[in-house]
Amino acid sequence: MKAALIVIGNEILIGDTVDTNAAYLGKKLSHIGVEVVFKSTVPDKVEDIKESFKTALNRAKIVIIVGGLGPTRDDVTREAVSDLLKKKLKFHRRLFRNIESFFQKRGVEIPSISIKQAFLPAGAKELKNTVGTAPGFLLKYRNKLIIVLPGPPREMKPMFEKIIPTLEEKLRNSPIVIRKILRTYGIGESSIEEGLNDIKNTREFEIGFQAHPGYVDIKLCARARNKNLANKIISKFESKIFKRFKNYIFSRKDENLEEIVGNYLRKKGQTLSIAESCSGGLISNLITNIPGASDYFKCSVISYSNEMKRKILNVPAKFLKKYGAVSSSVAGRMAEEIRTLTNTDIGLGITGIAGPSGGTKNKPVGLVYIALSTHKGTTVEKFNFYGERTQIKEKVALTAFSLLLKYFLSR
Amino acid sequence: MKAALIVIGNEILIGDTVDTNAAYLGKKLSHIGVEVVFKSTVPDKVEDIKESFKTALNRAKIVIIVGGLGPTRDDVTREAVSDLLKKKLKFHRRLFRNIESFFQKRGVEIPSISIKQAFLPAGAKELKNTVGTAPGFLLKYRNKLIIVLPGPPREMKPMFEKIIPTLEEKLRNSPIVIRKILRTYGIGESSIEEGLNDIKNTREFEIGFQAHPGYVDIKLCARARNKNLANKIISKFESKIFKRFKNYIFSRKDENLEEIVGNYLRKKGQTLSIAESCSGGLISNLITNIPGASDYFKCSVISYSNEMKRKILNVPAKFLKKYGAVSSSVAGRMAEEIRTLTNTDIGLGITGIAGPSGGTKNKPVGLVYIALSTHKGTTVEKFNFYGERTQIKEKVALTAFSLLLKYFLSR
Repeated sequence: MKAALIVIGNEILIGDTVDTNAAYLGKKLSHIGVEVVFKSTVPDKVEDIKESFKTALNRAKIVIIVGGLGPTRDDVTREAVSDLLKKKLKFHRRLFRNIESFFQKRGVEIPSISIKQAFLPAGAKELKNTVGTAPGFLLKYRNKLIIVLPGPPREMKPMFEKIIPTLEEKLRNSPIVIRKILRTYGIGESSIEEGLNDIKNTREFEIGFQAHPGYVDIKLCARARNKNLANKIISKFESKIFKRFKNYIFSRKDENLEEIVGNYLRKKGQTLSIAESCSGGLISNLITNIPGASDYFKCSVISYSNEMKRKILNVPAKFLKKYGAVSSSVAGRMAEEIRTLTNTDIGLGITGIAGPSGGTKNKPVGLVYIALSTHKGTTVEKFNFYGERTQIKEKVALTAFSLLLKYFLSR
Repeated sequence: MKAALIVIGNEILIGDTVDTNAAYLGKKLSHIGVEVVFKSTVPDKVEDIKESFKTALNRAKIVIIVGGLGPTRDDVTREAVSDLLKKKLKFHRRLFRNIESFFQKRGVEIPSISIKQAFLPAGAKELKNTVGTAPGFLLKYRNKLIIVLPGPPREMKPMFEKIIPTLEEKLRNSPIVIRKILRTYGIGESSIEEGLNDIKNTREFEIGFQAHPGYVDIKLCARARNKNLANKIISKFESKIFKRFKNYIFSRKDENLEEIVGNYLRKKGQTLSIAESCSGGLISNLITNIPGASDYFKCSVISYSNEMKRKILNVPAKFLKKYGAVSSSVAGRMAEEIRTLTNTDIGLGITGIAGPSGGTKNKPVGLVYIALSTHKGTTVEKFNFYGERTQIKEKVALTAFSLLLKYFLSR
């Protein structure tokens, strides 16, 4: 079954907001077997919304519209949907009371502009907003399903989660697309492609590849009349591919590298602390995004100056002077010190130059040392990353996780 | 002048990749006065690309197509453009040599599939790729300008930067849209809107609003025959609005809260260290995303257990026992200790429950204390945030920055 997304908002078109809703919805829909075939972003204008809505209705059975449900004058999604489908906007007393009580709880009277949020196109079913005042709605139109959701992710996501069972019900015995990821480590994209070039892409089954810093994904995609059949196709090819690359596949799910590393830490009963410098807290931030990270993650020190490396991490002053803060020796020492200081099994130490300034001829922007210390000893690796400051930080973090992964896989 | 964007790629539709290119291009185009009126994301299929391309040509003078220029079988943008505009693909010997030498430098022979990257539609002007093998191209078609760019951001961005002067030249004495942001703190979206409801949106001038955790943007947008005129309109309304809300407007640019706080720190010559717990390094990560953050940011300790709060931050054990790790007293102590330990002007202390587990009836998920310590003393504020783990972390970070901002604004 096919879906089309319409995202509404000037702020997305002009780049004020990065559209994470579309990626979220794309992932969720793919996960249950819906194929997203079209996405369009349009300004907060009735005519523009209507035109894309029309295209979407032509291309897909499910149309999801996100945004433009707020109280202000530039929120016109309700009007556009009502207009195109010729379903008048109707006042819902219960919705009005909900909105009213939302404001009462905050000790404010309902602003007059918020009243329009109590209107829905005739025949629409309210989707309750548990976070804000903008209700979403669901509408059947001919054989299409139209889902209208508010723009703020924290309101949109819980609302969409609740519709998933309805979508899954609609999908039973419908044409379906199922995807699967095999995540590999230690082998290049082209070597994998060569090892699979006897498997041709067909309408029924496709292979794709995606290289990330530190790992490569083999992406399987099956298209069939129903879920059972699609699952069978995936299984057949998955076991074929797994046999060929079993030494490289470390995950058969779309998991982050940090989740995989987190699972290893938990499984092996090991603990981790990190001494960051140029990565500025990104590594710690990623690992603490995982629920339950406190089981294995103990502490980080982000020492953003020589003084702090000396004072908090006890890196000897003569070390810093002799080798410089960005050096293999200092990285190693940082990893060892944080491990001792916090009494963990593993210590990571990272030092480098994230740029844009601070680089020299001998130590250019992007030069990074990553050290891993355990009771068996300390290893340090040197990297030269390319890109802007935040891109370098990101590569440092991914590489740090891939070094942890390598450590677990090699034991 | 209007522009339309077409982004090509299955991985974006299914949510495997968050589309940051569109936001980047939207921002750059808005900045020079081009109005992005349409964006569409389509699969790697000739027919789908052509259909969106047709819509884009109808709606805008500038059409930018991103992605699908690679060497593999699913890269079909060249073919789609050539097809729709009836401009045959032509082999360019010079392009071929560039691609060949790209591989030679890496000690590999040119793969046969890469040869198609040496073809461009007739009349197209090459846009040099300084990073990868996929050249972009520029094409005039009737009175339209078509710009085709590769998908990887690190290839696309430098290529686009080089076209900006051409676009600016095209914009001289053309209709233009200029935008401006007034960033407010301490006042709600609806109160601002009420205070501005005598200013009606017209074709010439529009006001919009955007609420963020911790601040609200007033967005001005002027449309005029030329740049001078548009700037005059903006100035007129800006000074009118500024007079009404001058106590709340803290920035007239599209800056992140952390950049604004960073600028205050630098301007006042103050330094900052942070003791994080539930935010897990996010606050430090955001502040170190800003180039030059080492001027004011010294150190963070992410103490993810009671033991670490005691051992690294010297929070007394009896404190932790009496009040619990998530308490006003512990937050305050964390802020004070990190300030003393690292000898900075300001210490931030954050403790809370990011969830999904770890909450109790008295201390539910989302309960967070944020403390700010200076030589004048320590203040602690209590918050109850809602959402998933990463959403709570994000709100904690934004709120921490808004507390720092409040501190600077109240001095």
